[in-house]
Amino acid sequence: MNNKEFITALAARLDMPAQDAQKVLATFVNEFTDVLGEGCSLTVSGFGCFEVKKKLERIVVNPTTKQRMLVPPKLALSFKPSNLLKDKIKE
Amino acid sequence: MNNKEFITALAARLDMPAQDAQKVLATFVNEFTDVLGEGCSLTVSGFGCFEVKKKLERIVVNPTTKQRMLVPPKLALSFKPSNLLKDKIKE
Repeated sequence: MNNKEFITALAARLDMPAQDAQKVLATFVNEFTDVLGEGCSLTVSGFGCFEVKKKLERIVVNPTTKQRMLVPPKLALSFKPSNLLKDKIKE
Repeated sequence: MNNKEFITALAARLDMPAQDAQKVLATFVNEFTDVLGEGCSLTVSGFGCFEVKKKLERIVVNPTTKQRMLVPPKLALSFKPSNLLKDKIKE
């Protein structure tokens, strides 16, 4: 399902025009990204937990050239679905 | 940030009471879980892509007892953040 279909489905559920549903969705996405951009974790009950994890720097070796390279540390986003969501998917 | 704080922040952004924001969030979560529960993937523009992936069954060996066990196939949810979200986290 793409973004447009999702907005249509949301609009039907919220009983509002698609344009309004799109605005609400955009607000959600902005708030999500702002919170996660600050490096905070975010738990949404019934859905799951978004967490910004710091991956440490590490050394990799190119097996062909034997060249060693340092991979810089980076921040990665991880998502853990809630048990409710997991159960729904399993069904 | 927990669910309650997130709802408060959303309510401020949407300029509506916290109770209404909570209802809207619940509708979002329900729609999300319903779509993903059907095994569909879901892309939210500017946020990322949720995908239900089928993990095949595999054989694992307990190194102590040498016992071989068959892990049954399962469905797992994966989330790929959009480039926009990734950039925000990196900042």
